[in-house]
Amino acid sequence: MDLHEKASSSKPGGTTRPVQVGSVSIGGGPFHVIAGPCAVESPGLLLETARAVRDSGASLLRGGIFKLRTDPSSFQGMGRAGLEELKAMKGELGLPLVTEVTDPRHLEAMLEVVDMLQVGSRNMFNYPLLSEVGKTGRPVLLKRGFSARVEEWLLAAEYIRKEGNENIVLCERGIRTFETATRNTLDLASVAWIKAREPYPVLVDPSHGTGLRELVPPMALAAAAAGADGLLVEVHPRPGEALSDGRQSLDPAEFARLMDRLSALLAALGRSPLGKS
Amino acid sequence: MDLHEKASSSKPGGTTRPVQVGSVSIGGGPFHVIAGPCAVESPGLLLETARAVRDSGASLLRGGIFKLRTDPSSFQGMGRAGLEELKAMKGELGLPLVTEVTDPRHLEAMLEVVDMLQVGSRNMFNYPLLSEVGKTGRPVLLKRGFSARVEEWLLAAEYIRKEGNENIVLCERGIRTFETATRNTLDLASVAWIKAREPYPVLVDPSHGTGLRELVPPMALAAAAAGADGLLVEVHPRPGEALSDGRQSLDPAEFARLMDRLSALLAALGRSPLGKS
Amino acid sequence: MDLHEKASSSKPGGTTRPVQVGSVSIGGGPFHVIAGPCAVESPGLLLETARAVRDSGASLLRGGIFKLRTDPSSFQGMGRAGLEELKAMKGELGLPLVTEVTDPRHLEAMLEVVDMLQVGSRNMFNYPLLSEVGKTGRPVLLKRGFSARVEEWLLAAEYIRKEGNENIVLCERGIRTFETATRNTLDLASVAWIKAREPYPVLVDPSHGTGLRELVPPMALAAAAAGADGLLVEVHPRPGEALSDGRQSLDPAEFARLMDRLSALLAALGRSPLGKS
Amino acid sequence: MDLHEKASSSKPGGTTRPVQVGSVSIGGGPFHVIAGPCAVESPGLLLETARAVRDSGASLLRGGIFKLRTDPSSFQGMGRAGLEELKAMKGELGLPLVTEVTDPRHLEAMLEVVDMLQVGSRNMFNYPLLSEVGKTGRPVLLKRGFSARVEEWLLAAEYIRKEGNENIVLCERGIRTFETATRNTLDLASVAWIKAREPYPVLVDPSHGTGLRELVPPMALAAAAAGADGLLVEVHPRPGEALSDGRQSLDPAEFARLMDRLSALLAALGRSPLGKS
Repeated sequence: MDLHEKASSSKPGGTTRPVQVGSVSIGGGPFHVIAGPCAVESPGLLLETARAVRDSGASLLRGGIFKLRTDPSSFQGMGRAGLEELKAMKGELGLPLVTEVTDPRHLEAMLEVVDMLQVGSRNMFNYPLLSEVGKTGRPVLLKRGFSARVEEWLLAAEYIRKEGNENIVLCERGIRTFETATRNTLDLASVAWIKAREPYPVLVDPSHGTGLRELVPPMALAAAAAGADGLLVEVHPRPGEALSDGRQSLDPAEFARLMDRLSALLAALGRSPLGKS
Repeated sequence: MDLHEKASSSKPGGTTRPVQVGSVSIGGGPFHVIAGPCAVESPGLLLETARAVRDSGASLLRGGIFKLRTDPSSFQGMGRAGLEELKAMKGELGLPLVTEVTDPRHLEAMLEVVDMLQVGSRNMFNYPLLSEVGKTGRPVLLKRGFSARVEEWLLAAEYIRKEGNENIVLCERGIRTFETATRNTLDLASVAWIKAREPYPVLVDPSHGTGLRELVPPMALAAAAAGADGLLVEVHPRPGEALSDGRQSLDPAEFARLMDRLSALLAALGRSPLGKS
Repeated sequence: MDLHEKASSSKPGGTTRPVQVGSVSIGGGPFHVIAGPCAVESPGLLLETARAVRDSGASLLRGGIFKLRTDPSSFQGMGRAGLEELKAMKGELGLPLVTEVTDPRHLEAMLEVVDMLQVGSRNMFNYPLLSEVGKTGRPVLLKRGFSARVEEWLLAAEYIRKEGNENIVLCERGIRTFETATRNTLDLASVAWIKAREPYPVLVDPSHGTGLRELVPPMALAAAAAGADGLLVEVHPRPGEALSDGRQSLDPAEFARLMDRLSALLAALGRSPLGKS
Repeated sequence: MDLHEKASSSKPGGTTRPVQVGSVSIGGGPFHVIAGPCAVESPGLLLETARAVRDSGASLLRGGIFKLRTDPSSFQGMGRAGLEELKAMKGELGLPLVTEVTDPRHLEAMLEVVDMLQVGSRNMFNYPLLSEVGKTGRPVLLKRGFSARVEEWLLAAEYIRKEGNENIVLCERGIRTFETATRNTLDLASVAWIKAREPYPVLVDPSHGTGLRELVPPMALAAAAAGADGLLVEVHPRPGEALSDGRQSLDPAEFARLMDRLSALLAALGRSPLGKS
């Protein structure tokens, strides 16, 4: 039995197993959109964005506190200090918070603030981190490694399940190929492939997947049409001033227009409507 | 000025320039679906398929007469004899015929039977063939090379335009990556990228793009949502008996269901409906 | 039996089957270097280069007459006129000539001038061209498609063999990957893989394989160490003035230094020395 | 200034800056070979292998104690218990020990036993781990991420340097591409590229780079010819019984033959001979 068979055979296929994050149930029912800035530059910025995306129908909030940047001289996120500040204002956000964990030693402090732990693309093969995240029992958003085959992605999920944590949502965010017109190559067929075989809810991140703002709406709609259970979208009040990934962030007005089109598409395909928090 | 700039700057962007194929106008208006078997195994099979796909709303018919197969011992198509047989029954098909040209020496005979010349993925870098196809003035369906960057694809189109032939429709059919779950990685973001910048109509081939029948409907819907002007879909009356690509072919009933869902999705997005031949 | 098995099982493995090109026998014995300009810009340039590379130990001469260029506005080679001019001066070159065939309709004229027909990377999947080249019986240098798997490369060779032509030499020239520091990724392990299993002589082209002049000597030496039967190297009298690929061409002095180092390496590994024409 | 420029411009190019590991100086002088089993299955096995590879000229010993395996049900290494056992027998090994660190929480215990810390391919983008490794000051063997561009690899080294640790040796181990004949595609041109521009010593791992025992010797020789400063080679007393990577491990006799050929090649190229511990 090769890895591929093992990845597939050990799981009950067919229906999607929903994952509960705060008041939100991801997978199998309403379509959920997680929105927010790439990095939390300040608590004020996060609050401003939270209000805007909630008004347009987002049901979870994203925002990076510890950032992994290729260039060590780039902005690395607010770090532990940011975590403290967010703790104080958590009640005001009004949406469950999803943020990336990059180091097992941050987990204890994060659990007080974060509703869903994101494992980023660079860490999908970081098995000690996956195990620690598994031990917390907290819902996990497991992004695909940008060079991971689907079978490896599913085996990474096994590292979390092995610790007794079944609250796993997958997120396709583009793979690395020879193409340079886009930042990554968004592999929507992998979403359809998994939805046909595995019980995991699957989201799509068209922001990292393309790296270009103008491609985010069409690829968000395409993701929904391909069968994704939701989206992860970068929204920044003023993308031109963003400290990271401004080129791929929507502003609140663009985000609102996208949500309207998504609603129409979901209805046409006979799917559940956009979820609420 | 690098290749990329050259590819972009020499073209009037913005609106799509429609291409007329028989009674059908591809691009900018109705959404057109080209359907049919991978290979024309017999004239009777083509006729049977033509009737079925036309009934479901396909507006053009596809079918390979000269096949390029990786393995020299595989079925290579009916060849010149097939062309003669098709000529005799052309009136009965009821749909314009799209077929692949693999050798410039076949062109003269093909022009009597074929309404749109397809340049296949393996030939996108075959510039002498592109030039000859350009000289015919006949509409061209230019598939993306499975390892071509978008800019190289656009430059391949220039080889056709240089001969005075502007009747070019592009077709995304998946690129080669490290992923092995699917036959290719269907790059829908390339469709959105081109639609935002270039006047070419763009189709998508979810059959070759995924290689798996069950992924064809979700990826066909995703292609429409991403902004494609139409589709190229493999349909075979009995996929289990197909001499090539049966694993990725829909049967007529599956195709009919897909067309219904496509209609609903196009309406929801405010786009023109499915085209008629 | 999958393609891979078929590719391997139908061939007598083990020892290399030499291919005779004029007075030169490639494979299994002396190490042969094919050198010359990317494109024949003029007959005088070719003659000047021929003298220089022969003096340094090259045993065959390369030079493109019909060029395939990604950008249709780039120099496309001297074409048929160049072929005529070369015919007149063929006796003076003093080395067998290797040049690329890009169109089956050129073959008749090429056979009067060219000792070995090169099938370029863009045409490895052009099966009609491979068949025509096979019918000529002339020795063939079959470059690997830049996105071809080894098994597909071997099956392309089958298209030539099927026509009764066993005079096939393979040439690794780099594959397309995500890496951008080099023009291609030179896959020397494919050379060692084939040498362990197949009877074909295998050459390596470090010029296209890297795209950077300073990497040509180390990768040429590495190719010999990995077991290649010879090299294809771009040499131009004045690389700064070359109409194509100047950035990856050696000048005659650099080429001479490389040949000296190659000689020493071959001796150290107990291999046959550099061949003579 | 893009990442690429930044990666290059901030470093003094030209000559190689040697890194001292115990009694061994890697880079710029003698050619050093690190050999040993993929995983330390038992202290006895490590000792047996150490004696064999030292006799053939290896100057450092490798062996994994904490293993990252794609499949969570595979052997994961001896772990902390193994570390304790190795501490007791460290004096007997006779060679400096190189082993992979997979979790920052293991570092304190590892520093008592390990002479050089390896950062594996899956962790090249794990910046918190790189920083922690940097803080130890211990020599680091930084393997290339299997999907990392050269510029990203150099920026990963910056994360170590930023903490004041300049004792960095790079190791090319193959990248992920579409080719499936070999486990990875060994990118020797990246070695030549770095050697022409950067001060880091660069090793090559032909075992992981190819995944096939019969390709290890030719690619090891090719690596030396391309300019590598040394090798990392998997050697197991009985590869058929290895708990991991047996298919790519040499036995001691094969390793000895390879070392003889390496010696001859280094001499022919005028390079320093094999180093001693």
